[in-house]
Amino acid sequence: MSTPQNGPTTPDGPRADGRRPDELRPVRITRNWLDHAEGSVLVEFGRTRVLCTASFTEGVPRWRKGSGEGWVTAEYAMLPRATNTRSDRESVKGRIGGRTHEISRLIGRSLRAVVDTKQLGENTIVLDCDVLQADGGTRTAAITGAYVALADAISWARSKNIVRASRQPLTGSVSAISVGVVNGRPVLDLPYVEDVAAETDMNVVVTGDGRFVEVQGTAEGVPFDRSELDALLDLAVAGCAELRVLQEDALKEEGSR
Amino acid sequence: MSTPQNGPTTPDGPRADGRRPDELRPVRITRNWLDHAEGSVLVEFGRTRVLCTASFTEGVPRWRKGSGEGWVTAEYAMLPRATNTRSDRESVKGRIGGRTHEISRLIGRSLRAVVDTKQLGENTIVLDCDVLQADGGTRTAAITGAYVALADAISWARSKNIVRASRQPLTGSVSAISVGVVNGRPVLDLPYVEDVAAETDMNVVVTGDGRFVEVQGTAEGVPFDRSELDALLDLAVAGCAELRVLQEDALKEEGSR
Amino acid sequence: MSTPQNGPTTPDGPRADGRRPDELRPVRITRNWLDHAEGSVLVEFGRTRVLCTASFTEGVPRWRKGSGEGWVTAEYAMLPRATNTRSDRESVKGRIGGRTHEISRLIGRSLRAVVDTKQLGENTIVLDCDVLQADGGTRTAAITGAYVALADAISWARSKNIVRASRQPLTGSVSAISVGVVNGRPVLDLPYVEDVAAETDMNVVVTGDGRFVEVQGTAEGVPFDRSELDALLDLAVAGCAELRVLQEDALKEEGSR
Amino acid sequence: MSTPQNGPTTPDGPRADGRRPDELRPVRITRNWLDHAEGSVLVEFGRTRVLCTASFTEGVPRWRKGSGEGWVTAEYAMLPRATNTRSDRESVKGRIGGRTHEISRLIGRSLRAVVDTKQLGENTIVLDCDVLQADGGTRTAAITGAYVALADAISWARSKNIVRASRQPLTGSVSAISVGVVNGRPVLDLPYVEDVAAETDMNVVVTGDGRFVEVQGTAEGVPFDRSELDALLDLAVAGCAELRVLQEDALKEEGSR
Amino acid sequence: MSTPQNGPTTPDGPRADGRRPDELRPVRITRNWLDHAEGSVLVEFGRTRVLCTASFTEGVPRWRKGSGEGWVTAEYAMLPRATNTRSDRESVKGRIGGRTHEISRLIGRSLRAVVDTKQLGENTIVLDCDVLQADGGTRTAAITGAYVALADAISWARSKNIVRASRQPLTGSVSAISVGVVNGRPVLDLPYVEDVAAETDMNVVVTGDGRFVEVQGTAEGVPFDRSELDALLDLAVAGCAELRVLQEDALKEEGSR
Amino acid sequence: MSTPQNGPTTPDGPRADGRRPDELRPVRITRNWLDHAEGSVLVEFGRTRVLCTASFTEGVPRWRKGSGEGWVTAEYAMLPRATNTRSDRESVKGRIGGRTHEISRLIGRSLRAVVDTKQLGENTIVLDCDVLQADGGTRTAAITGAYVALADAISWARSKNIVRASRQPLTGSVSAISVGVVNGRPVLDLPYVEDVAAETDMNVVVTGDGRFVEVQGTAEGVPFDRSELDALLDLAVAGCAELRVLQEDALKEEGSR
Repeated sequence: MSTPQNGPTTPDGPRADGRRPDELRPVRITRNWLDHAEGSVLVEFGRTRVLCTASFTEGVPRWRKGSGEGWVTAEYAMLPRATNTRSDRESVKGRIGGRTHEISRLIGRSLRAVVDTKQLGENTIVLDCDVLQADGGTRTAAITGAYVALADAISWARSKNIVRASRQPLTGSVSAISVGVVNGRPVLDLPYVEDVAAETDMNVVVTGDGRFVEVQGTAEGVPFDRSELDALLDLAVAGCAELRVLQEDALKEEGSR
Repeated sequence: MSTPQNGPTTPDGPRADGRRPDELRPVRITRNWLDHAEGSVLVEFGRTRVLCTASFTEGVPRWRKGSGEGWVTAEYAMLPRATNTRSDRESVKGRIGGRTHEISRLIGRSLRAVVDTKQLGENTIVLDCDVLQADGGTRTAAITGAYVALADAISWARSKNIVRASRQPLTGSVSAISVGVVNGRPVLDLPYVEDVAAETDMNVVVTGDGRFVEVQGTAEGVPFDRSELDALLDLAVAGCAELRVLQEDALKEEGSR
Repeated sequence: MSTPQNGPTTPDGPRADGRRPDELRPVRITRNWLDHAEGSVLVEFGRTRVLCTASFTEGVPRWRKGSGEGWVTAEYAMLPRATNTRSDRESVKGRIGGRTHEISRLIGRSLRAVVDTKQLGENTIVLDCDVLQADGGTRTAAITGAYVALADAISWARSKNIVRASRQPLTGSVSAISVGVVNGRPVLDLPYVEDVAAETDMNVVVTGDGRFVEVQGTAEGVPFDRSELDALLDLAVAGCAELRVLQEDALKEEGSR
Repeated sequence: MSTPQNGPTTPDGPRADGRRPDELRPVRITRNWLDHAEGSVLVEFGRTRVLCTASFTEGVPRWRKGSGEGWVTAEYAMLPRATNTRSDRESVKGRIGGRTHEISRLIGRSLRAVVDTKQLGENTIVLDCDVLQADGGTRTAAITGAYVALADAISWARSKNIVRASRQPLTGSVSAISVGVVNGRPVLDLPYVEDVAAETDMNVVVTGDGRFVEVQGTAEGVPFDRSELDALLDLAVAGCAELRVLQEDALKEEGSR
Repeated sequence: MSTPQNGPTTPDGPRADGRRPDELRPVRITRNWLDHAEGSVLVEFGRTRVLCTASFTEGVPRWRKGSGEGWVTAEYAMLPRATNTRSDRESVKGRIGGRTHEISRLIGRSLRAVVDTKQLGENTIVLDCDVLQADGGTRTAAITGAYVALADAISWARSKNIVRASRQPLTGSVSAISVGVVNGRPVLDLPYVEDVAAETDMNVVVTGDGRFVEVQGTAEGVPFDRSELDALLDLAVAGCAELRVLQEDALKEEGSR
Repeated sequence: MSTPQNGPTTPDGPRADGRRPDELRPVRITRNWLDHAEGSVLVEFGRTRVLCTASFTEGVPRWRKGSGEGWVTAEYAMLPRATNTRSDRESVKGRIGGRTHEISRLIGRSLRAVVDTKQLGENTIVLDCDVLQADGGTRTAAITGAYVALADAISWARSKNIVRASRQPLTGSVSAISVGVVNGRPVLDLPYVEDVAAETDMNVVVTGDGRFVEVQGTAEGVPFDRSELDALLDLAVAGCAELRVLQEDALKEEGSR
């Protein structure tokens, strides 16, 4: 397939895919995509497609036993042909790459930021985020979808009285988006073609009330200055506010698929 | 979710899910499920859901270089929450389990049985079969779906003139189904609940013209005799004939999803 | 050494080594080949030589604890110079290959088919099958020899009153043989030179009373039809009947070596 | 030894170690700490002690061959008893942890931001950053020290005419510092005792001319708002300006140790 | 089996197995124990039984290419049930233990001491020493047997004109034996029961002309003094002189088994 | 840096670095080189520099639980750029090399020879010996330094009343040195340049009262005879006597660094 893809964007005109600089790709959140998992969400940002499942198990890792508190963790992975050219499976290579580790840790931290683990009791929720198709922004799509799967798993556990806390274990919502400077212009939600062309690349994780959980900005070529940083943060906060609404809408629906 | 599942089947009446002994589950084959891969199929046998992608790359493994012949191989894997309880990722464990190896090898052999590698030229096609949801028969669903993805990848390569053989590299079609003896009765296409209750379990890989590529029968408890073996083979051959029609139908459609 | 080996067989005449199509290679079963193991057998099928040891240990794997039942498992391996050219050790490569896994699982399943694990009590028997020299049929020789080592280990455990079951934990005997279609003719017990030339290759595991535990047939080139399958099964059942007698004879002798 | 350590800091008064909120710990940069390496620096931030060595080798990784450009990469590791309680060696565990991978990648990216790899020719410089003693801020100390080792290795290569570029491959300098919100107050250069108590933790990598290479902020408990983010960035930029002077001073000296 | 074993030895009387302090166990060297390998020897020292095979391959490891010299290396391993209680396979554990590595290196060094690698040409001989049964002294039996297998492999290569050197690549012969202080008395060739009771344990590798290749003495409990060391060396040199004769005798015979 | 190094030594004159054949390199033992560890020593033999830390932890490995005895073990490792050319990290390669294993085991055995583990109680001391710079004799320097770190850790544990034994757990002191035959002349304490040129290489571990713990002699090219062995042992015993004095002096000082 590997269709030719046209250049990222021109300085002033519309972006390669016709979006405005501050416009998200079409975002779709499909709940209950699987039958077994306590929460399962297929999240799509344009062609990026991530399957987020939340598995609820009683008990916590050894180092947390007896604390009375729960645990939330995440594992991120990519199917071998999620990308344009096939990559080797990490299970076949026998080791997990640095990028995979880094993103798994980011997703876990981001979700724990909105969970009161005391209210969970000694239970663990594992968020598996498997990228079925990658077109930029897989880690931020994963966080955005995993939040919805997590909310479903917690509802399930409360409805079954496995989590008996009087207070809701979720202290807020969380979503994430990528922003970057492409051709000298700050833009929101970069597909792969813009991602590789970006001078600065930033992933921002924002709570439902607009505060930051993570800010990870990297100069790919030229270092960036304070004003660029500010412009990127503004874009990201606005984008996450839109995502929050989409998450809420999805959680209001009755099941899906 | 983990909904309670009722017992497998009663000796004479209908099966737990209401099917006749010789009836397939609803089978769905969705082509072009992904944008990047040269062939990609989501195949569903009831709740079993496997994503089969075919990746075409020029060149062959070292041991085959200079032979003028191509290579077809497969990798099978299961997402951690494909099953009712989450399993650890093999990439995290750092090694691939025996079952995974065994099934990957089976899929590869089954597909090579209908490919004339000389007509492929020195090119490799990798079939990735990732189980998104497991409810019995994942390896046979994988073979059935992978054949369709393989056919698409070969068409793609011929249309691009990367494979220039005058003769079609596919020498036939191939599909596979599980059969087993449950409660003393031979049945076709076992879901998980029947699979664990089966006295004998058999996976049969059959070509479009009704010959065998693989016959793998295993007594789970009591050894089986020749007449049971014969009854199971009859069921499997008939089931695969139905699957061949479904594969052909799918390949006639213009794209999907 | 690597002596040149002449072609496999001609369509009608005798086979390369002079055997009739339905004739086994000379089979030798030497019990008590080692001093420490509870059961140890050197089994030879022509030049194929496999050391099978049975190690009896009290206790069972974690997942079986408290069940009151025992466990039987197997590990297959090949010495680096068992074959014509030296292969790397799997311990040095740091991972076990797919073929090794697959065969280990097959041997374990085959032996469990004739063991009533309830009568074993919570004890484990590990069958180690190490190929000292390979000339085709190593997995089937391993099953045939491991059965004898298993029988010895169970006798030992009963004589020591470690297994106190009133009923014999062995519910029958088991042996295995390879069959295949070579030059269009079904033949029994293939040495390496026939194995590589076979169009169809089948391993069959049969109980002492002539029923099937495993049937694993693979088309190496051309798919096989029902009549070929039937002919191969006939050969295998007859061959295993001969092996049963050899196993019984060996078990009647007083020690060996 | 494990001496008791007093609480981190009180809201208004001085910090536990008596420093002002915007004050660095005593920083020491010792060049030529080893005899073999092309660049080697022992960098100390208070009790944090990191050995940074730069190894220059001709040639580049396979994927970069023929590009005419060089490569700079980094590996971070911690001695088992760098911390208060001994941790297992990653070489003994057989796999590198997520944190180690993440930090190695950060150091590599940070240094590449100030290197014009075209001027390096097809040569590789590996920066090994081994933490001999850890008391917070090991990754930022590593970046700060590795820059000096890198500068030495490049000088060495130019003096030997191995790098013959007319233009200096270094396009600027780079240093890094940690900042965080502790007891509601933004502070610079956190030792371990403050690090574990911080509500927000941020690592900032800044070029000699005051622009950003990396900004990595993480809410450890409560998400942070824009004004906190701004205060932390101000602190970090000022701290890195001081570090730049220390780096320059070190590079002016004639050898050390 | 695990028969009870009586205590090691009494200070003055005969040893547990009736031997004099300076007496070897019965030693048996069987050549051509396998059909494929260029050299293969089953060597037995009492109940210790090691299969030594020599595999000749053209070419050398990368780091030796172009040198015109050959290479000799060794790999030592133990079957899981060689010992009284079964040990896990190193291939299953996924890593080779320290003891295995150490012994493999010792065997390789010992054999290289009597090979003129220049006369080998760019060819490699791998000595695989697999312990089938262990009762003390496995590494020294391995060296003693591997020398004979090596001699056979070199004769084979010369007879085939693959090694064309005018001068014999073997510059001498080599054998090895264990000695130790047991109950205050220096003894030769320790079986397992003496080995675990020894105060000092020493492995000595000696050439046919009585010089040392390796001397490895270890105090297991009490350090040893110079006079004990001297007594042990005397015993070892005499024991190896006997082994040299047995090696020569074996090499004079026409094949075996 | 990699300064050219002149040839090892001439038969009669002084050695390349001007030393007499029986002269040690300048030896420096710096205690308390780190702040956290219960014992930490930087030991230098000329340019060889090893950091030895002793970590005291309550409890013992599983196989020793309930014995009432303690355990002492060691791990040896080399920083990637300790040597003239950078080597890959064993953590990155995912496996520990044979040499590393062998040396770790040697160091552990050597120290246990002077510890009465009964007096330790069920406590473990791990000695980490990390080579910061290598110029020959790293394993013997490690043993010599680790003894001092071990003594400090035991003093610490006794002062804290964690080890309450009335008797000192240390039964003596231990040091180690390398000796070898270079240009036909026995010499003491070989730097790298002599080490690679040595015909015979020997590491000797000696207690404070002059007895042997380990003697490991290896012929690198020509086997050695009894008189050479005797001369080397004389040199080593004298060298270790000097080291004993340096260890005692270091342990008398009040802290260091």
